[in-house]
Parts: sequence; C-alpha cells; structure tokens
Amino acid sequence: MIGVAVVGYGYWGPNLVRNFSEAAGAELLAVCDVNKDRLAAVQGRYPGVSITDDYESILRDPRINAVAIATPVTTHFRLAMSALMAGKHVFVEKPIAASSEEAQKMVDEAARRRLVLAVDHTFVHTGAVRKMRELVDGGLGEIYYYDSVRVNLGLFQHDVSVVWDLAVHDLSIMDYVLPSRPVAVSATGMSHIAGEPENIAYLNLLFDSNLIAHVHVNWLAPVKVRRTLIGGSRKMIVYDDLEPSEKIKIYDKGITLNGGSQANGEAVRQALVGYRSGDMWAPHLDMSEALGTELKEFIRCVEHAETPLADGHAGLRVVRILEAATLSLAQRGRVVELEPVRRVA
Amino acid sequence: MIGVAVVGYGYWGPNLVRNFSEAAGAELLAVCDVNKDRLAAVQGRYPGVSITDDYESILRDPRINAVAIATPVTTHFRLAMSALMAGKHVFVEKPIAASSEEAQKMVDEAARRRLVLAVDHTFVHTGAVRKMRELVDGGLGEIYYYDSVRVNLGLFQHDVSVVWDLAVHDLSIMDYVLPSRPVAVSATGMSHIAGEPENIAYLNLLFDSNLIAHVHVNWLAPVKVRRTLIGGSRKMIVYDDLEPSEKIKIYDKGITLNGGSQANGEAVRQALVGYRSGDMWAPHLDMSEALGTELKEFIRCVEHAETPLADGHAGLRVVRILEAATLSLAQRGRVVELEPVRRVA
Amino acid sequence: MIGVAVVGYGYWGPNLVRNFSEAAGAELLAVCDVNKDRLAAVQGRYPGVSITDDYESILRDPRINAVAIATPVTTHFRLAMSALMAGKHVFVEKPIAASSEEAQKMVDEAARRRLVLAVDHTFVHTGAVRKMRELVDGGLGEIYYYDSVRVNLGLFQHDVSVVWDLAVHDLSIMDYVLPSRPVAVSATGMSHIAGEPENIAYLNLLFDSNLIAHVHVNWLAPVKVRRTLIGGSRKMIVYDDLEPSEKIKIYDKGITLNGGSQANGEAVRQALVGYRSGDMWAPHLDMSEALGTELKEFIRCVEHAETPLADGHAGLRVVRILEAATLSLAQRGRVVELEPVRRVA
Amino acid sequence: MIGVAVVGYGYWGPNLVRNFSEAAGAELLAVCDVNKDRLAAVQGRYPGVSITDDYESILRDPRINAVAIATPVTTHFRLAMSALMAGKHVFVEKPIAASSEEAQKMVDEAARRRLVLAVDHTFVHTGAVRKMRELVDGGLGEIYYYDSVRVNLGLFQHDVSVVWDLAVHDLSIMDYVLPSRPVAVSATGMSHIAGEPENIAYLNLLFDSNLIAHVHVNWLAPVKVRRTLIGGSRKMIVYDDLEPSEKIKIYDKGITLNGGSQANGEAVRQALVGYRSGDMWAPHLDMSEALGTELKEFIRCVEHAETPLADGHAGLRVVRILEAATLSLAQRGRVVELEPVRRVA
Repeated sequence: MIGVAVVGYGYWGPNLVRNFSEAAGAELLAVCDVNKDRLAAVQGRYPGVSITDDYESILRDPRINAVAIATPVTTHFRLAMSALMAGKHVFVEKPIAASSEEAQKMVDEAARRRLVLAVDHTFVHTGAVRKMRELVDGGLGEIYYYDSVRVNLGLFQHDVSVVWDLAVHDLSIMDYVLPSRPVAVSATGMSHIAGEPENIAYLNLLFDSNLIAHVHVNWLAPVKVRRTLIGGSRKMIVYDDLEPSEKIKIYDKGITLNGGSQANGEAVRQALVGYRSGDMWAPHLDMSEALGTELKEFIRCVEHAETPLADGHAGLRVVRILEAATLSLAQRGRVVELEPVRRVA
Repeated sequence: MIGVAVVGYGYWGPNLVRNFSEAAGAELLAVCDVNKDRLAAVQGRYPGVSITDDYESILRDPRINAVAIATPVTTHFRLAMSALMAGKHVFVEKPIAASSEEAQKMVDEAARRRLVLAVDHTFVHTGAVRKMRELVDGGLGEIYYYDSVRVNLGLFQHDVSVVWDLAVHDLSIMDYVLPSRPVAVSATGMSHIAGEPENIAYLNLLFDSNLIAHVHVNWLAPVKVRRTLIGGSRKMIVYDDLEPSEKIKIYDKGITLNGGSQANGEAVRQALVGYRSGDMWAPHLDMSEALGTELKEFIRCVEHAETPLADGHAGLRVVRILEAATLSLAQRGRVVELEPVRRVA
Repeated sequence: MIGVAVVGYGYWGPNLVRNFSEAAGAELLAVCDVNKDRLAAVQGRYPGVSITDDYESILRDPRINAVAIATPVTTHFRLAMSALMAGKHVFVEKPIAASSEEAQKMVDEAARRRLVLAVDHTFVHTGAVRKMRELVDGGLGEIYYYDSVRVNLGLFQHDVSVVWDLAVHDLSIMDYVLPSRPVAVSATGMSHIAGEPENIAYLNLLFDSNLIAHVHVNWLAPVKVRRTLIGGSRKMIVYDDLEPSEKIKIYDKGITLNGGSQANGEAVRQALVGYRSGDMWAPHLDMSEALGTELKEFIRCVEHAETPLADGHAGLRVVRILEAATLSLAQRGRVVELEPVRRVA
Repeated sequence: MIGVAVVGYGYWGPNLVRNFSEAAGAELLAVCDVNKDRLAAVQGRYPGVSITDDYESILRDPRINAVAIATPVTTHFRLAMSALMAGKHVFVEKPIAASSEEAQKMVDEAARRRLVLAVDHTFVHTGAVRKMRELVDGGLGEIYYYDSVRVNLGLFQHDVSVVWDLAVHDLSIMDYVLPSRPVAVSATGMSHIAGEPENIAYLNLLFDSNLIAHVHVNWLAPVKVRRTLIGGSRKMIVYDDLEPSEKIKIYDKGITLNGGSQANGEAVRQALVGYRSGDMWAPHLDMSEALGTELKEFIRCVEHAETPLADGHAGLRVVRILEAATLSLAQRGRVVELEPVRRVA
C-alpha cells in the first residue's frame, strides 16, 4: 500500500483524486491546491483525505510515497523536481514539462534516485490505442503513414499554442504505437488573434524510413473530429475516437506489388500495382477507464520498481517534438532536426 | 451555332462527347482518337459524328470552331497550341499543361489571337462550389483557413504524383473560391513504391494575410474522404462531396473578440475570446451536371468573346502551384515562392 | 423555499437528489430508501441531508412540502397516494403508475386536495423536444405522421415489457408534441425468452384524423438508434437524440398538391403531386440539463399553484396507452380503443 | 444460345436490354414497346436488334425462346400467359402479377408446359442479400426478428400503394433469406392525399415460431433510409443498402441465457440473461451487377430446365402477402391469414 498525494484540483485533478481513492494498492492521503474553494470541495466529497495549500507539508510527510501533479505546465518542473528530491515517486500531467531542458533534468533526477517518473499519456492506456499498438506490432505490415485530425471549436489558450494543447495527445499516442521515432519535424500554422499563439497548425514528422506522420490540430473548427488513419502494407486502420464503441476499424485493403522489372514499358509498370479490398473488422475493445488502468500501472511500478509505459523518457521525447514544432512554426515550416534522447548511463 | 471536335475518347472524353452532343448552341462534328476501338464505340453511339485518328484533319476543317482536348497531360501543350495556331478556340482538361512554361505560352497564344482558352476545372461549376464562393463573398466574414482532405484507395499513377492527380481539384476550387492568391507553397510526401512518384502528400499554401490553406491527398487510404473545412470570422463551412444532397453545411459558430487591452493581465485576456454556437444550415444546391453548365459557358464565351470562369490564367496559376509543390516535395518541404501570374499587356 | 424529500436512491434517484440540492427555491431535507448502503452514500455526499428508511417519518415531517418518488413502478401508487393524503405535493417517476386505475385515483386525489402532481416525463423538458413542439405548433403544417425507433441491446426486464420500459419515452414526447390525442392502439411484439415479457414491439397509434404514429422498441438490437421522423405538409423533422449537438434537423421537403379534378384521367392525376426539396436547417438547441429545468418548473408550480407541463393527466394518458398496448400485444395486434381521459368536474 | 425478346422499354426495360445484350448464352433478338420514340431509342443504340410494337409477332417468332416482361403490373398476366401458351420461357418484373389468382394461373401454366417462369426479385442476386442468406443458414443462430425501413421522398403512385411499390422489395428479400414463411399479415397505413392509395405503411408478418418481421415503407420521408436489422440468437446483422461498400455488418452481440429455474425468485431471474458484446465484421461483398447475375441464372435455367431462385412460386408468395396487406390496410390492421402456397402435383 503506497501513500499518495494529489497536487492541483482544477480541471484534471478531480479525476486523479477519484481514481486514486478507488485504486487498490494506494491510499489517497492528501490533496494540495492554492485555492480554498477547491480544497473545500475535496473535503466535502472525500472527508477522510487531508487538504492543504502548503506543498512543503506534502513533501515532508513520510507516509506519502508518491505525488501526482495536475497543475499548469509551467509549474511541473519545480513541483516534480522538489518531490523527486524529497524522495517521492512522481506522476505528472502531460506535457511533462515546459521545455526539454526541464524534462531532461527530471528524467536524470528520477534515474539517479531510482524513483518512478511517469507522465500522464492517458490515451496509451485506452483499449483503442493498445489495440492499435498490437496491430502495428503484427498484422498491418510495414507502416507507411500515420495521419491524425484533432479539431473542434476549442478553448483558446493564451500561454501555449494549439500544438501544446492538442497535438500533445497525438504525439504521445505515436510515441507508443509507431515502430520508430521521428528524426525531424516541420510545422506550419496561424494565429487568428493578434498577439496570441497559433490556433491552427499542421505538423509533419519525418522518419529515417518511408514512414510519414502528420497531425492537424485546430481550435477553430465547426465540427469535432478525432480521426487517425494508419496505413500499412498489409492492412489499414481508421481510429475514430468519437465512435461510442467501434473506435477501431481494420481494413483488409491495400495494394500488392507484383515482381518484375519497372523498366519494360508502361504495360509492365501498370501491372506492378494491384489493388486489394477485403473484409473490414472492428474488434471489441476494453472500454474500462484509461486513467484507472494507468494509475494501477503506476502503483505497480512504484511497488516493484518497474518502468511505466509512459515514463519520463516518453514525456521528454514528446516535449522535444513540441519544442521543435514551435521553432518550425516561427520559421514558416523550416525542418527542425530532433536530437536523439540521451539515456543516463 | 459553333462546330466542335473532341480529341481523346478515353476516361473523360465520353463525358465531353455526351455533353457537347446535347448542348444547345454547339454541334459536335468530330471525335479524334488514336485508338480504333474507341472510335468504333463513338460511331456506334453517335452515328452522325465523324471519327478520325488524324488530328490535322480536325485543324484543317473550317466548320470546326473549337477543340476540346481530353488526352494525357503531356500532350496538352502540343495539341492545344496547334489548335490555337489554327484559329480554334480550346477547352482543355486539367491540369492545363505539364509545366507553367507551356501553360504561359498557351495563355499568350490565345490572348494574341483573341481566342477562348478554357481549362476544365469542373468543380467550379458545381452547385456546391458556387455556393461556397457566394458564402466567401458574403457571410463567412474574414477567411481564416481552407483545409481539404481528398483521400481514397486510388489508382496509382506512374507519371505524376498524387499532387498532380488529386490536389489539382482542390487547387482549382481554391483558385475560384478564395479571396486572395497564395504567395508560397510547401509540400511533404512520400512514395511507398520504390522509383514511383509520391502517393501521399500534404500541401501548405501560404498567403500575404492570416489565411492558411492545406491539402491532404492520398492514394493509399482505407476510406474515401472528400471533405473541406473553411473557417471564417463569422461563419464556417463543411463541404462534404460524398454527401448525396447536403454537401454544404454552414455553421454559425466561431469566436467573438471582445475589445479591451490585452496587456491588463490574465482575466482581461480570458475575456478577449468568446464562443458562439448557433444554427447549422444546409442550403439547397443546384444539382445539375457541372460539365453541362461548364460547356454551356464555354459555348457562350466563344460566341460572345467572353472570358470563362476557369480561363488559361486559372489553369496557369494551378500549374504553377503544382510545380512549386513538386519542387518542395523533392526538398523535404522547403517553402517555394510563387511568382505572380503575368498578364499580357 | 419549499422543503423536499426524495424517496428511492437507486438508478434515477441520485439525479433527483443532485438537481434538488442545486435548485434555487427548494431545500432538500431528506432522502428515504430501504437500502442502508444507498443511504450511507447519500450521507457521504450530502452531509446536510437527513437519511431514513422510514417513509412515514417523511410524511409526518411538516417542513417537507413535496415528495419526489423514484422507486419501482409498482410502488408508485401506494407511496404517492399516502404522500398526497399527507398533504404533500408529488413528483413521480414515469410511468406514473402501474395501471390507469391507480393513475386515475392519484389524479383525483391531487385535484381534490389542490396539490401538484407531476410526472417525470423528462424529455418534454429537453431543448430538442421543446423545439419540436414549437415547430409542430407552427411551421410543419398539418402533421401527417410520427415515427420513432428506440432500439439497442438493453437490459432485459422481468416485470414489464419493452413497451413499458422504452415506448413510455415516445408516448410522453408525443403527448406533449402532437396536436391531437390517439383514439386507439394496436401493438405486436415477441418475447424471445420463454416466460418473459416482450423484448421487441411495434406500436401503432390511431387518431381521428389522417395522422398516424408508430413506435419500434427493441431490447435486442445490435446498434443503438434513437430516431424520430415527423412528417408535416410543409416541412419535416428528423430528431436524432444520439447526435451530440444537431439533434433536430428540419427539412424543407415535401409534396405540393396542385388543384384540379382527380377525375380527369392519368395526366391530370400525375400533375396532382409536385415534389419540393429545399434547405435543411438544424436550429441551435438549449442544451441545459432537462431534469434541472423540470424541477425548477415543479418548484414554481408548487409555489404558485400552477399546473406542470407533464401533470397527472399526462401521466394517466400515457399509462392508458401502455395498458391498451399490453392488451393488444396479447391479442396479436387487435385494435384497442382508448377511452378519453376524464377530467374532474 | 437462346433467343430473347424484351417487352417494355420504359423505366426498367433498358437495364434488361443492356444486360441481355451483353449476356453470354443469349441473343437479344427483339424489343417490343407500344411507344415509337422508345423503339427509336433502342434502334439507335442497338442497331442489330429488331423493334416492334406488335407483341403477337414476338410470340410467333420461333427463334425467340424466352420473353422478358417489363411493363406495368396490370399487364403482366396477359403478356406472360400468352407467352407461356406460345411455348416461351418467361422472365417477369416484380410483382409477378396484380393478384394471387393471376399469379397462380401463371405458375400452373408454366408447370404444365415445363417452362421456366422467373420473377425479377433483383435483390436476391446482390452480394449483400446472398451474404445474409449465408449467415442466416449458419452463424446467426435462431432468427428472432427481421426489421426493415425503406423510406424516402419518393414518387407517389396513383394505382398502387407504397406497399406494392416499396415493401415488395423487402418481401422478396425475406422470401429468400428467412428460414420460414409467414402465416399471417397485418398492416396499418395512411393516405395523405384524398382518394389516393396509402403513402405510408407498416407491415407485420407473423410466423409459426417466435420470429417476427416488420417493414416500414414511406414515400413521404425527409431522408432516404434503406436499413434492415436481423436479430439472431448468436449474432445480429445490420444491412444498410446506402453504404457504398460495407453494406453488411455482423455484430457478435446478444444475450446468453443461463440455465436454472425461473421460479426461484428475482436473483435467479436476473442471472438468466447475460449480455455479450464482441467484434463487428463487415465481409467483403461481391459488387457485380445483380441483374447480370440474375439473367445469367435465367439463361442457365432455360438451357438446363432448372428452377431459378426466384421462380413463379416465389412471385406468388410475395403477391399473396401484398394482397393480404392491402386487405388488412383497409380494415385498420386486422390480422389476415395467409393460405399456404399450393404446389402443382
């Protein structure tokens, strides 16, 4: 049984509190927030949980083994680092930090102290995304492309662009699902309110192979779309997160390449490509709440010193791409190389 | 009454022949093709129309005032130029030519001889696209973005990339619908068959304003999508060409900017953006065959020396973008500037 | 400020409790249930509310002016009657009672004591259904038909058929929306589990006009459908309750009857019917929680001695149809006449 | 090689002519129609085919072995009977005749003369319907219900109701797909134009088992729907004929009945029904033109004296149901028994 504190009870914090309060293996001991009203709400609903606006008291409490951080991204580094330095395991909202430099320091600190550092890439724990990973591992064949559209009339944010707000979901999914890692990024976008960050953006991820990935994110769309296409040499996937149950559809469709020289004229060239159209299949998915699964994994990792699916390195990789995309956005889509993530020796 | 010949009776030619044979104001006199079987098919169906495999005979025939060209793009220049030089008006399939240099010469030649040069940007004559133009002209407000997805499991072509095959439709629609012209292009894409042109591509069109346009084209998609979003400051459009009747939906949705300084802290900034969600409306559209409308317009332009909606300049503008996109594709998405289309003095 | 008690904290009770606890004008004083665990859940969440398993204590409490009943339908009569006899206003789940005889007695008792008797026909308070009523009142023209499909893989119930479980929603909507009342009912259906009530049923409602209404309800459908068509002489509605926002679509489609004798042969008869296809329009709907609106209305009715939209008579009318449908089901779809609802003199 | 004549070149005749003219094993020799313009259209398109307005000349022509009849339903009996009496095999549009008495005579005459009598139940030859039959034969388990909705804003007919126009499709599909035959019919409907036949109708088909079938047909619907649900004890089907390719979806969903007495109280009863939700699967379907397949079958049946899938008996069974439904419609939905189809000894 590990003792847990949740820091931040704003938009996402209540979900962490609810799930930790129901999770076997963990005891939710305290909730910390700077806002008194929010703390009162916690008290009313969870009378047995301590409330505090003093983060230091959390860090000093020896019964608390792990801290879950659901505060604005600019505070992640400070809160997570002090928790790690106080010997606490850390679960932190995505993106893991406001810069790759910060994220790298968090990763290094956790590694040095052999503490679990997990980032809340929630989608990675949904039945749909796990099924996609399974299919990418076997069934789809060589992966040709990954294309995601994530648009709606969304809350404009003033401190981060739509890339940090929406594309972070796609990047965390790709980090888990794709068989290789991007080597460069380009992004174009536009702000339609003077002085504000981009509210529409298109990201290209380049790989050292013939895989190509693309993300369209938009806070100013008339309809909500959450749709990903994955093209493979053998099969293809449509992942529509707005479908109530059949979120993943697998198409036995594609092209078949016939052997033979391409040089022998048009007829032979035409014969090179055949078309295949077979069954479509929507597998039954585990529909249990992703956050519950994720916290269960976090608790197990803390108890057994294991590494979570979405660890600090995953969080760092995603932040590197967000940074590179931001740089590219400012330079009309210039390709920005991604340096490989360094692992602590 | 103008005399017309159709050159090329392959994929699209039969539609030209059928529509010209039914068009008031035109008499379909001849069909030319190099393939005897195709000519026999014409004869069986249109016993009154001459057939020939000798293009020169078309050019020499004084009763023929106009030539419609539906042959492979690499032959457009040669066939159209000799027709213009023979004093014939020309209607040519899209893209108008294989290069902007060719297209420019065609435009110049037509201008010099005061002949009509029309390019078959068919979509421009659909009820849906005309309605979009009407809405862009009044109702949508300032145009913020144009986003199009045109993907399916399509025939792989060996001589041109998916950009020349599919994006040409979007570029011709944008050329007609948007209030301004792009100044630069970038494109990324990938070929998944060694030695073949790109079968997936993403185009960004940059403008001298805060308008942004983007096109996703793909021959290797599991599902067919033909969907365009247009975001305006007052209203937004979803254009789904696969809908049988409600192809255009207009959303009274968006953001409203409240006046006031952005400098006075977070609360004031939050108050800057309000959200609006009102009715949706799908106007009744003219569903008559676009090609019929288009040929009627061509005939009228020939008779009255008018300029068609999609004239040689429109064809040239689209080819310039296709060329720039091809160049960008080969250079990992480098931004390629578009030089303005020169008009003959 | 009126004092309220909620009786029954099973499936729907928690929604009543939450909404009453937030409603201006009412004070939630007590919750009553026979199950100790449920009462404990209430206490944890609403520390200020009394809990009890003794319904009599509710009836004796002079601070309690109104009782909301969310218990199994067979108990509605007993609980509601004793509340009315104790001088309490009553809000009761649908169907209002297990028989029209019971419902009639409740209606009479409430009338005699000038107490408010409301039935929870929740849909009547949704933005979608209110918009439909508005359109039926003006815009649709003469109402030709009402057709509803309400099917899914639903929980099989052992005490009531699918008609009492699902069709009750449609009947309560029709009771509010349609311009006239049915005069007869027929129903066919089938039980696919020996000894259990019907799990699929089709209801026909007959009117004293050329309006026809039909409901298909099914607990054993592979997909969830909640779709109603309303045909009018001028316009038609599609109401799809599963659409997240555009639940109501209004089609300017229909036929137009041209004057002229029908007797003068085929040509004249053909000319009788013209077809009209115009715009489609999805009005913005009030998306606030229906139950909140409904309880606000109930409180207002109690305070000002007004009659709620869905009063005891509405509840009685719906139960009469359910009874008639049940009788018809047992007799292979025999038409069962509905006697008009008697009003207390 | 059999010689064929097509009688009637109105709405459907051209499809018969085109398919017969391309069918191996048959030679299209003549087309007969009373309208000179239609005959001229045939001549222009099929110069090798004789045209005539004299049906007797068709019957006298010894080279003609089979006659395909695509004329108004009231003429089917006279034309088909005289063809059979002239020794011709007959292929006739659906419904096979205007009454069961007529149909019975046609069946008897064909049997007596050992001629093929086929009815054009086209849907039976589509890939989708054949797949449904395959699934009903094995995979779905016991068939619980068949529910079809076939509605749109359709052409009002003056001589027959919507049942004869639209429900005939569903009845022909059911006749082929379902494992048993209906024993009784009831139907309710309404005409919304005084003096005209019903434009909306609901049919119930009753069986000697716990199978139930229902059809909703409507000429006055704002949207086009072509959707059939088939519920089985093991799997369920959704057949949506408007889907371009995935017309058939098979759901591994349903209930499971657990053994055990129903008498032992609520807990045991609850345990009786379990719910199952597994994969969904859309099989690849043969998309070739159904009419081509059907005529190929007809030719083979003529050549080898075989019985077509949709023979005269099938046509008769469907007409019996149409007649019974018409009777029921006139009597407010009274159940009308179907007498079993008699086979010639």
